Amino acid sequence: MTENQSMRRGRPGYDRQGILDVAVTAFNEYGYDATSMGVLAERLGLSKSAIYHHFASKDEILEQALDTALSGLEAVVADAALTADRAADRLDRVLRGAVHVLVEQLPSVTLLLRVRGNTEVERRALARRRDFDKRVTALVAEAQREGSLRSDIDASVVSRLAFGMINSIVEWYRPGGRENADGLADDVIAIALDGLRMPTSNRVEELLG
Amino acid sequence: MTENQSMRRGRPGYDRQGILDVAVTAFNEYGYDATSMGVLAERLGLSKSAIYHHFASKDEILEQALDTALSGLEAVVADAALTADRAADRLDRVLRGAVHVLVEQLPSVTLLLRVRGNTEVERRALARRRDFDKRVTALVAEAQREGSLRSDIDASVVSRLAFGMINSIVEWYRPGGRENADGLADDVIAIALDGLRMPTSNRVEELLG
Repeated sequence: MTENQSMRRGRPGYDRQGILDVAVTAFNEYGYDATSMGVLAERLGLSKSAIYHHFASKDEILEQALDTALSGLEAVVADAALTADRAADRLDRVLRGAVHVLVEQLPSVTLLLRVRGNTEVERRALARRRDFDKRVTALVAEAQREGSLRSDIDASVVSRLAFGMINSIVEWYRPGGRENADGLADDVIAIALDGLRMPTSNRVEELLG
Repeated sequence: MTENQSMRRGRPGYDRQGILDVAVTAFNEYGYDATSMGVLAERLGLSKSAIYHHFASKDEILEQALDTALSGLEAVVADAALTADRAADRLDRVLRGAVHVLVEQLPSVTLLLRVRGNTEVERRALARRRDFDKRVTALVAEAQREGSLRSDIDASVVSRLAFGMINSIVEWYRPGGRENADGLADDVIAIALDGLRMPTSNRVEELLG
């Protein structure tokens, strides 16, 4: 596409990705149902037909945004599975990678976490989320079997609590603040894997058995 | 009030608390804004004026529900402060107590966690939540100073991640399931304070320094 064609497809700066970014922000602010194509057009300073040039429907915008978040998370699990690391180290990679996806795709992940399954697009996204959760739970169970993670907590509870901690980051993280993604990922790993408590001599003796 | 008077104040089974329970469930299901007094009246099988006999407005119902959740959480912090325990042990009590409040007041806490500050009642609830967060953060900082919690993570990040884990329980916990409040509280404490990783001999040597 030449620059001229690009100009004719909408106002400069609003290609497909630009429309998507503005739409996701509006969905997070007002809710998906409450954000009409008319509201989006107004926010973008475009006609509705200019938006329809890029997306067949509001549902397609939602689907694309949720796919951004889900593809990122799925890639993290798939990449970890390619390594020959112990399960506990692959879990470390997954938790760390998930924090990065969350920070780098904050608006899309925020949208994903609010999906309740009201439409077919939302239900498909929830099914992919459940599949992701299952893969993480399987990884926790594998690490428990190999003896590198404590096995006195149900693997699905571990997976839910660890992701509860990670997902809560969308509630308070603001880009450009004191913490960057690497620092946050270090904090999550430190708490989830090693805990907050300083070892007392008692505990170390207990560990040494 | 005699039983007869009680009957005249509404259908049997719907005293003030009964109305509150049904209203909170509806707010969580449809959202507060989308739930009108008419919808509530229909759900309860009462006239709107029968509801107004117990609550001056929809806002008062919301305020009461949020107060249930907030008072529970505030009592947990206040009770822990009365003990002479070390800060790390008081934090243990607070995290454990918060899981109990969450499980026992699941609908009210769910409602609290969704509040975005759209009304004066919501803004007052958010201010109380921030105050609670500050007290937890201060407790974490105190435990870090006394040397019982690791101090390489910012106290407010610790507090946010720990409560991210706890608050996420509203997303998946269903009363009557396999886990009860005590078991869940044990799991949260185990992960947050001691971590998931089994000690390796290397790590124990490192701890013994």
